[in-house]
Amino acid sequence: MKHINVGVIGLGNRGSGIMEWVLLKMPEVTVTAVCDAYEDRAQKAAEVVKEKGGNTPLVTTDYMDVVTSDNVDAVVILTAWESHVSIALAAMRNKKAVAMEVGGAYTVKECWELVNTYEETKTPFMFLENCCFGRREMMALNMAQLGVLGEIVHCAGCYAHDLRKEISFGCENRHYRLRNYLNRNCENYPTHDLGPIAKVLSINHGNRILSLTSTASKAAGLKEYIKTNKPADDVLQDATFKQGDVVTTVITCAGGETIVLTLDTTLPRYYSRGFTVRGTKGMYEEVTDSVFLDTPEDREKDFTWRANCVGNAASYEEAYDHPVWKRYIEEGVQGGHDGMDWLEFQAFFHCLREGEPMPVDVYDAATWMAVTTLSEQSICNGSVPVAMPDFTRGKWLME
Amino acid sequence: MKHINVGVIGLGNRGSGIMEWVLLKMPEVTVTAVCDAYEDRAQKAAEVVKEKGGNTPLVTTDYMDVVTSDNVDAVVILTAWESHVSIALAAMRNKKAVAMEVGGAYTVKECWELVNTYEETKTPFMFLENCCFGRREMMALNMAQLGVLGEIVHCAGCYAHDLRKEISFGCENRHYRLRNYLNRNCENYPTHDLGPIAKVLSINHGNRILSLTSTASKAAGLKEYIKTNKPADDVLQDATFKQGDVVTTVITCAGGETIVLTLDTTLPRYYSRGFTVRGTKGMYEEVTDSVFLDTPEDREKDFTWRANCVGNAASYEEAYDHPVWKRYIEEGVQGGHDGMDWLEFQAFFHCLREGEPMPVDVYDAATWMAVTTLSEQSICNGSVPVAMPDFTRGKWLME
Repeated sequence: MKHINVGVIGLGNRGSGIMEWVLLKMPEVTVTAVCDAYEDRAQKAAEVVKEKGGNTPLVTTDYMDVVTSDNVDAVVILTAWESHVSIALAAMRNKKAVAMEVGGAYTVKECWELVNTYEETKTPFMFLENCCFGRREMMALNMAQLGVLGEIVHCAGCYAHDLRKEISFGCENRHYRLRNYLNRNCENYPTHDLGPIAKVLSINHGNRILSLTSTASKAAGLKEYIKTNKPADDVLQDATFKQGDVVTTVITCAGGETIVLTLDTTLPRYYSRGFTVRGTKGMYEEVTDSVFLDTPEDREKDFTWRANCVGNAASYEEAYDHPVWKRYIEEGVQGGHDGMDWLEFQAFFHCLREGEPMPVDVYDAATWMAVTTLSEQSICNGSVPVAMPDFTRGKWLME
Repeated sequence: MKHINVGVIGLGNRGSGIMEWVLLKMPEVTVTAVCDAYEDRAQKAAEVVKEKGGNTPLVTTDYMDVVTSDNVDAVVILTAWESHVSIALAAMRNKKAVAMEVGGAYTVKECWELVNTYEETKTPFMFLENCCFGRREMMALNMAQLGVLGEIVHCAGCYAHDLRKEISFGCENRHYRLRNYLNRNCENYPTHDLGPIAKVLSINHGNRILSLTSTASKAAGLKEYIKTNKPADDVLQDATFKQGDVVTTVITCAGGETIVLTLDTTLPRYYSRGFTVRGTKGMYEEVTDSVFLDTPEDREKDFTWRANCVGNAASYEEAYDHPVWKRYIEEGVQGGHDGMDWLEFQAFFHCLREGEPMPVDVYDAATWMAVTTLSEQSICNGSVPVAMPDFTRGKWLME
């Protein structure tokens, strides 16, 4: 399989962006099918393919048309969260390689179905956690693997992104987040922070997540935003959102490490993924974009650190940028989201072509997505600890 | 009571510092007694009093001598954590006003004893949480009280202070932290972060803490530090520390707010209290020392915030510095810890003189200290949620 025919399923903001800025720019990929539950989105995408790709793709509102098409080798699933798994299962059963966008799971059972269907069909599957390909995330991973940070003890991250506009205009822009925020209360988007951390901690490869607790604050942010920013007779003015503004999830790992995840999407703030890696010899921290090493020089700066060292991570790039990023910078960074998306799809198509294992596999997907449904359980039972299933069925011990 | 005679109990680093840099500089205070379980410390303190205060204090190793002395109006308790409460109880029973240094509780019962003894004896009691008097903490409190941050939804803080040297040389320097880190696993020092947050959230005055979960990482930091920094035959080389390096505590409040506390004292890092206040209209965040308000200007900077706005809190000082700090700056900031200690003792002596209620009272002390023992319970039961007693017995509802 040298040239790869791709069906794109889900053409909202994310889907159309990935198609236009990544897939249609990759010379060894052709978009041969476009699909969205909304016909206008599918039609619009087809126009883009014709214009930028030069071919006429299959256009459909039914994903089964895509996963059964002879003209499709792989599908990229970028739909609403609720449909990711069913589409992935259908694709794997029809031997279409799957690249599935991130989101959280609604049940533990669907995570098992992903794993079981993958094991039964052996269809290549990659989970599209682009932040695993972030420059700083990969630099910290590299530092951890080189031993520069010592024994890793604790990690933290967040999805801190003010989505009040997107959510509260969810009727107008047909966004799936609105119905989720109205009706659920959980860590609904754990993977941008958990993914890179799981890689640093070798989750499913020598380590595993044991348990979590989740705690949600009240929901006040969207109510205030809608009151101020939407008409007085807007249908959402009297809405009650179930989703707490800030959800804190604390995870324990077999290796004794802890992970803290924060979902933080409905209060005013700046964007951050808060990626933090703490070891016995040093730390990387995204909020200050700094590296602190256990040297006499760094220790001396204890109380004056921030005044002097915020942003010092740039000075460690030469020594510790991940080899993948060093090469990427030489070749030229491309695509959206600081170049992460391009690197991610490059990895997917490379592994597909070479028959190599995917860098973010079905066990990662099942484990990371399960955090959402487990956090929902924990919250609705008053923050009780909930156990994480071992989706590898013990294979994490064999690495 | 115009002039106040003070007995200082506990003269380690903190005690001798407070005595020399605060108490002996206050004109309306005389240190009339000094006490430490180690005689050399008491003797040394007496010399300092003679030299700087000009009087000869009572010198003793038995705190009962101090709390029964006719020449003492108030005691300041700065001993090891384990003895704070017994000394405070003895002092209150002997009608000596109490200023008690912070620490965590070992049992819930001793928190009740503090409350009950205070209610029985009506002896003035203040809990010495100096960070409640920090400039930024008070600015954020002021902003919250003025409504600038909207409805407060979530707060966070940490005690992030690399104490590896202090702890691992605990035999040599007779420090109580060593035995605590060897034998306990809990949020052992919650008040520097929780105190100012409790003030913002009106805990015990219209709001209360309902429950918490605590989760500890493994303990690896001290082991590594001792291996590298102490002799090969040091008694601690084979020690096993029970205290996890990072302890995350998630608290729920009656008002629906959540609080996240992080104890982070045995891995390499810079000092921080991570004080964060999040509301529906804005935030203050200590790590970036920034204020983010829900204005079109701030929202626009979403992804470029850190590059442009780290440290912008200084530009809000003129508008929002707390009136107490405005006056303090005019009069001249004094004493240690960025001026917090001076302000704290000034408040204590002022309230004592005027018979006013203490700014950090016995109910605050009981509630904040109880976090330690409750976190120990949560951790040893696998992070289960634990309920916080209502030490006000319902009086929090009456404000």
